[in-house]
Amino acid sequence: MFYEKEKPIPPEDYVRVDHLSLKSYVSEIFVKLGTRRDYADIVADVLVKADLMGISSHGVQRIKRYIGGILNGNIEPNNEPEIDADVGATLLLDGRKGFGQIVGVKAMELAIEKTKYYGLSLVLVHNSNHFGIAGYYSLIPVNRGYIGVTATNSRPLVAYTHTVEQNIGTNPLAIGIPRKNPPPILFDAATSVIPVGKIELYSRVGKEIPYGWVIDRGGRILTGEPARIMDSIKKGEAALLPLGGVGEEYGGHKGSSLSFLIDVFTGVLSGAAWGKHVRHTIDDKPSNVGHLFMVIDIDCFMDREIFFERLEKYIEEIKSSKKHPEADNIWIPGEKAWLTMKTREKIGIPLHKSIYEELIRTGEEYGVKTKLLIKESK
Amino acid sequence: MFYEKEKPIPPEDYVRVDHLSLKSYVSEIFVKLGTRRDYADIVADVLVKADLMGISSHGVQRIKRYIGGILNGNIEPNNEPEIDADVGATLLLDGRKGFGQIVGVKAMELAIEKTKYYGLSLVLVHNSNHFGIAGYYSLIPVNRGYIGVTATNSRPLVAYTHTVEQNIGTNPLAIGIPRKNPPPILFDAATSVIPVGKIELYSRVGKEIPYGWVIDRGGRILTGEPARIMDSIKKGEAALLPLGGVGEEYGGHKGSSLSFLIDVFTGVLSGAAWGKHVRHTIDDKPSNVGHLFMVIDIDCFMDREIFFERLEKYIEEIKSSKKHPEADNIWIPGEKAWLTMKTREKIGIPLHKSIYEELIRTGEEYGVKTKLLIKESK
Repeated sequence: MFYEKEKPIPPEDYVRVDHLSLKSYVSEIFVKLGTRRDYADIVADVLVKADLMGISSHGVQRIKRYIGGILNGNIEPNNEPEIDADVGATLLLDGRKGFGQIVGVKAMELAIEKTKYYGLSLVLVHNSNHFGIAGYYSLIPVNRGYIGVTATNSRPLVAYTHTVEQNIGTNPLAIGIPRKNPPPILFDAATSVIPVGKIELYSRVGKEIPYGWVIDRGGRILTGEPARIMDSIKKGEAALLPLGGVGEEYGGHKGSSLSFLIDVFTGVLSGAAWGKHVRHTIDDKPSNVGHLFMVIDIDCFMDREIFFERLEKYIEEIKSSKKHPEADNIWIPGEKAWLTMKTREKIGIPLHKSIYEELIRTGEEYGVKTKLLIKESK
Repeated sequence: MFYEKEKPIPPEDYVRVDHLSLKSYVSEIFVKLGTRRDYADIVADVLVKADLMGISSHGVQRIKRYIGGILNGNIEPNNEPEIDADVGATLLLDGRKGFGQIVGVKAMELAIEKTKYYGLSLVLVHNSNHFGIAGYYSLIPVNRGYIGVTATNSRPLVAYTHTVEQNIGTNPLAIGIPRKNPPPILFDAATSVIPVGKIELYSRVGKEIPYGWVIDRGGRILTGEPARIMDSIKKGEAALLPLGGVGEEYGGHKGSSLSFLIDVFTGVLSGAAWGKHVRHTIDDKPSNVGHLFMVIDIDCFMDREIFFERLEKYIEEIKSSKKHPEADNIWIPGEKAWLTMKTREKIGIPLHKSIYEELIRTGEEYGVKTKLLIKESK
């Protein structure tokens, strides 16, 4: 079954690229910029995985941002994370201005090791950079049979409930839970009503922004033309609304509290920046992003085979519920992204021609020799 | 400053009762029903705290439900929780059909003890009953300087995204974080767009249900007359929508995923019931509710004084943000509940006259000798 969560529209504006060649290509760009080969491979894997999963806003189109970060010194690509504190089942890591992806993978590896002893572990990280999709990290323990939790703060794009300016991040949370057979459960979501990438996407496909996503500094809800709204957000004249929307009637205070709490863990408690102090990668000061990673051992609570059986039963019950008349399907968290990944591993990743051409130019600029393989159209 | 989150409207329908006498009174009812005095005191404390905090849906008006549970054998009031598994920083407890409040307090006490050694702990509970407000338990570690996390599943009242029937609970999450001075941060929220108690409240004060809270089995959004809507929910003909509302446009899939994930932890992994198998306390079978408790030691990551300072700075920044023109105040999670509690400790808890009279009748029925003290009107 071919399924794509985020379809390339219109198709003629896109080129399908083989994901393995894309990964090698992106990695080589970072190597040419002075990054260790093993680190560059990890960063490329995180970026390409986002494209595979249909989260193109966090995919290779962001490569410019990371290159900019290396060039202006906000990302020191070869810096190894360091352990600042190691107490019981907890760890505090210093990302040392390295790639968020590097400290992210390292943190999850250490969290898994701790969990083998304690059944549970919590790792916080400060002094990091944007790490791409949060779900990538939760899948590391999931692939070894553990439950994984990941969260991060991010630069302020959201207006906390009853405020009208950018003061908290879209601060996503990702929870991964293994199943007997793939796809695993993978919840990966911003705590804002939508991620900012959705507005960029609407802008590209020319779709109007619905009522309830964006608020301006006067307290007006902005709707309509996406490019103009994206521009207002970029200028700080408008902000995303939290999950639950404006005010408290639909739970906007819940969304903004979740975002705030994630920031208390990843920003305040980790020693990173928080709220409006978190910077863009190519800002004039380091981002100082903070992350959270947690791993839980299923076997501490229940024989994993029994857990898997119970979970399958629950999923079957949800899936066989009475469906909404306008719905195509009842989805389990992560299912769409997984199907998209399986599809794109076969038919390639659709890159907008402008992104593809930019990648080619970037490769030429840095002397990349790897070729990007174009997949034949089906 | 006198502040009440949930105001008694109209005031002449309410009686103000002294909270300490209410606690003794409620405790004595449970004692008369055969409950150990120390257990009865805890249950009464949880119920009265809900009223103090302005969450009357979880307060003494629910006493009938617990009495019914004892009478039909679903609650065995003197059963002590037992440890089923104890591995590293994790614990699994069997609530043994006792009060949810008893295993809840016990679980948090054990979680704090574990955290002293490991910096972190996770306790799951199965075979329990409705435990009242989740926030009560998170405040136990908070009052001793730790971060506390509580979650529970609950009987199905919510329609999972793209479904139209009751298949998941309102599954609340409560996160408490200590501050230098009270109030502590206390997020305590259902993962549905609203808790079901809000519809009961609207019903009592005659307020119309807005568009986007409730869906019926045909996929229609129900609005208007609250008593009729409450009735449809009770009959299983309508369900609450998840946080984020219907479909995916405003993040309904995020709310229903959070609810589902809380159930995977508290129901599936703990060995309790999940989804549609979770029963009402006075159903013909035991509820088999499951809970989650987590405690985190701030000092593992940062000197607590520095953490407190950083947190105050963040709160100040949020509070001094540009306010929405229609907002009275910018609130930190738990602030309203705390102010309500401080107010009601002074001026008493407003009980609807029908609830007050029911309490008096119940007391007479079981031979309670404690008197309920009425507070003079100001």
